[in-house]
Amino acid sequence: MAEPDSTPPDPIPVTLFICRTCKRAEDAPEAPRAGARLAALLADPPAGVRVRAVDCLANCKRGPSAAMTRQDGWSYIFGDLHPEEDAGALFEGARLLGASADGLMPWRGRPEALKRGMIARIPPLNLPELTS
Amino acid sequence: MAEPDSTPPDPIPVTLFICRTCKRAEDAPEAPRAGARLAALLADPPAGVRVRAVDCLANCKRGPSAAMTRQDGWSYIFGDLHPEEDAGALFEGARLLGASADGLMPWRGRPEALKRGMIARIPPLNLPELTS
Repeated sequence: MAEPDSTPPDPIPVTLFICRTCKRAEDAPEAPRAGARLAALLADPPAGVRVRAVDCLANCKRGPSAAMTRQDGWSYIFGDLHPEEDAGALFEGARLLGASADGLMPWRGRPEALKRGMIARIPPLNLPELTS
Repeated sequence: MAEPDSTPPDPIPVTLFICRTCKRAEDAPEAPRAGARLAALLADPPAGVRVRAVDCLANCKRGPSAAMTRQDGWSYIFGDLHPEEDAGALFEGARLLGASADGLMPWRGRPEALKRGMIARIPPLNLPELTS
């Protein structure tokens, strides 16, 4: 008889969307935009993470903004991000979301920037009835 | 020769997620929660719209909240909703999103509640490169 398979399932690829238009209030007007700086800092993602810069995530009141999603998982949007401090947190959040068995990013172990900067989450289209 | 087909494409079904936990500040503590009232008001959706009540969309600072999404379309989250005033706006927004050729909900013609209550939008996983 085969042994029970206790190997965790393979992570599901996560796409990270970065708003390249967002500014931070303290940035000089002529400086590169915070969103563009954040996208540049995320240019070399780990395996299983894809990064896309977009023009607007409509979270303008609480930018700089990033969103992430995956097949059969919830979509998350985060704000109040600081490019130079929070780039690593986004990669770690993407790793957590990709490895999640229920498609939710766990709160425990989530980087602080993705707790205090939580804006909203949206369920997958195929949300099972009892895991809302 | 056949005439050019000018029929618009069939609408794509839209799923509307309603947070049933959200309250409004002015509601009495013992009253049904605003989110639950909103979900009840949306219980009979038009064709092409599916309504799902969920426990939390994590937009707690600006609830009552609703989100909507569709296959190959952007996902939207709205806040500051008033159940008795804005239920119809959500159905109209869902109709606009379902009928959209590029997967975005148009700004022009969008109900006011979905302009002032715009929280964020998240692209689809298969976002084409040039329409961000």
